[in-house]
Amino acid sequence: MLLDLFLLFVSARLAGELFARLRQPAVVGEILVGLLIGPSLLGLVRETEFLSLFAELGVVFLLFIVGLETNPRELWRVGRHSAAVAVLGVVAPFALGYFLMQALHHPTNEALFVGAALTATSVGITARVLSDVGKLGTVVARVILGAAVFDDILGILVLAVISAVATEGGVSLPAIALLAAEAIAFCVLAVLIGRPAVHRLSPRFWRHPQEARRNPIFALAVALCLGFSLLATTIKLAAIVGAFFAGILFAETREAAELRRSMDPIYAFFVPIFFVIVGTHVALTTFTPTVLLIGLLITLIAVLSKLLGCGLGALPLGRRQALTIGIGMVPRGEVGLVVASLGLTRGIISQDLYSMVVMMCVITSILAPPLLRPLLRPAQLPAAPSAEGRP
Amino acid sequence: MLLDLFLLFVSARLAGELFARLRQPAVVGEILVGLLIGPSLLGLVRETEFLSLFAELGVVFLLFIVGLETNPRELWRVGRHSAAVAVLGVVAPFALGYFLMQALHHPTNEALFVGAALTATSVGITARVLSDVGKLGTVVARVILGAAVFDDILGILVLAVISAVATEGGVSLPAIALLAAEAIAFCVLAVLIGRPAVHRLSPRFWRHPQEARRNPIFALAVALCLGFSLLATTIKLAAIVGAFFAGILFAETREAAELRRSMDPIYAFFVPIFFVIVGTHVALTTFTPTVLLIGLLITLIAVLSKLLGCGLGALPLGRRQALTIGIGMVPRGEVGLVVASLGLTRGIISQDLYSMVVMMCVITSILAPPLLRPLLRPAQLPAAPSAEGRP
Repeated sequence: MLLDLFLLFVSARLAGELFARLRQPAVVGEILVGLLIGPSLLGLVRETEFLSLFAELGVVFLLFIVGLETNPRELWRVGRHSAAVAVLGVVAPFALGYFLMQALHHPTNEALFVGAALTATSVGITARVLSDVGKLGTVVARVILGAAVFDDILGILVLAVISAVATEGGVSLPAIALLAAEAIAFCVLAVLIGRPAVHRLSPRFWRHPQEARRNPIFALAVALCLGFSLLATTIKLAAIVGAFFAGILFAETREAAELRRSMDPIYAFFVPIFFVIVGTHVALTTFTPTVLLIGLLITLIAVLSKLLGCGLGALPLGRRQALTIGIGMVPRGEVGLVVASLGLTRGIISQDLYSMVVMMCVITSILAPPLLRPLLRPAQLPAAPSAEGRP
Repeated sequence: MLLDLFLLFVSARLAGELFARLRQPAVVGEILVGLLIGPSLLGLVRETEFLSLFAELGVVFLLFIVGLETNPRELWRVGRHSAAVAVLGVVAPFALGYFLMQALHHPTNEALFVGAALTATSVGITARVLSDVGKLGTVVARVILGAAVFDDILGILVLAVISAVATEGGVSLPAIALLAAEAIAFCVLAVLIGRPAVHRLSPRFWRHPQEARRNPIFALAVALCLGFSLLATTIKLAAIVGAFFAGILFAETREAAELRRSMDPIYAFFVPIFFVIVGTHVALTTFTPTVLLIGLLITLIAVLSKLLGCGLGALPLGRRQALTIGIGMVPRGEVGLVVASLGLTRGIISQDLYSMVVMMCVITSILAPPLLRPLLRPAQLPAAPSAEGRP
């Protein structure tokens, strides 16, 4: 156990560091090193029950933190542009991915999972590029960041529905409608009941005269994160759906900044290990010419669908800005990998398809930054109106 | 897995909070709630492979943090008094515990483990009391804190030797000497090679222009903590011995304060769960009248041996101060429980003896604060000479 964790952690951090220095996303380095030390190549780490449960815990924390950094207010600020970008940017990839898989005669469950894996934007990569070139204050940046929030919520809803459908087995329209209603009810109730409760509770935990080590606000957050994940699984949603909404509940509290700092070491310990494990699951032997071809096809669909969907949504801002926004939304990353990983461990998608989806996530994540930088550099992008003064 | 973790974490934190409000050590609350939800009473949580590995990871982090807070320089400041208190406070409990078990016809391995579990002072409880009554600046407090550092190091050495002896099976004098030499060599080499390396490396990690989330100094610390634990197990020492020394390496770096803050959430997540699991291992059915009687006898030995050993060491400071220091060193806690837990999971000590040792740790931890407070309150304890100006 110690050996496995040591290997996974050290290789994750070394690869992440290397890729960060190469100005590439750390997550790509983590996946590739997983492929290297996994059963396909060096065979240093093999899957144990402990590691898969450990990875599951890691992804629950990851989605909690994504939720914690999702500020619903951003949505209202950037308004209709973000909403249009997000909705079209979810519908287009899901539909294109689903129909591609159906056309290739894959089972409906697989098609649904590929569609879902194509929906979620990994905004971290784009945000990093925007911040590198000092363009975080532009309209383009605001629209992208706002859309990504919306995207995450829609993506989680899509995942909630399809994972429930896949567990149920059948895919009848009333069943989907029921599950969608259940998923939406979970989110709405979580926010309606949980938000006021958390906003009322968390200041009390904050002020509690305890030694810093006991960190009561952190304890409350971890308890809710685990509790919501559990609740989600009991109504047959994925655990990460619950974790994500638990995170959202804390996102707007006064304690959010402190809580984010407390979650950082948890992130730094669990999350890189999760992505290395994602990489170890990729079986190189599955990459036959056919798989490579379909993988490239999925990647193409992934790029085009976001470019078209998001670009169309952003068209009122002008063609150049629409193109920038479209490319900014291309990287899949964390959430796409989480969906693929869930599909694989539940036996819903095949090993082949898993490898293709990971390939798509890796390529889109590597592709976006070099395409984005020239679009951002020369143009005088309009600055966003200041958000000061608005509540 | 989520259900187990949720139950363990929430009950740990609620019990810890309750005991903290009752001015009792949180660790006592965590053990007792473990007893409550464990197989003995409610049976809500049962031991799984995941949970035992998770607890093992928790205790590795715990000992790393104990090491990180162990400042070897404190030893020189308080000088000979602390050293005398520490050495006599380790020798007396070990010897008395060992001979008591031998007299009761327990196997030698068990006697060694009980002796070891009796050695280590849990200074956290006493430090809390001293800080509550504002006496942290007194000679008594300095001597206690300094002795506790020495105590931890001696305790870890004792543990290193006896756990290796127990794994080897036989207990021949040359074998013990060899293992003691091995343990001491490990510590000396770790400090001689590791300390300059860490002192040279850690500022580079600190200054590295990375986003806070990647937290490179934390990554280095976790990597060394896991790596040293692994190294210790490969030379048949306990993993926690390695973790403890990895912590010591960082204790005097400039980055130590930042690192402690980063380790806090790791502590807050893993450590309470570890102590609840310690509690779940106590089988109530083992508490026959005989076991209770021997348990009380061990507890009596635990109190008297520290009182005599440490008191004798502190006698040059006057009888009242010697008594205060003796009582301040009485609480066993974390390290005693870690030793017992290690003995149980390795099948070296029986379930009966495990329950007795846990009982001893709980009673000594509850006993010390109420005895200590009156001794501290009325007397004008001499203040320690200021340590300012010394390097």
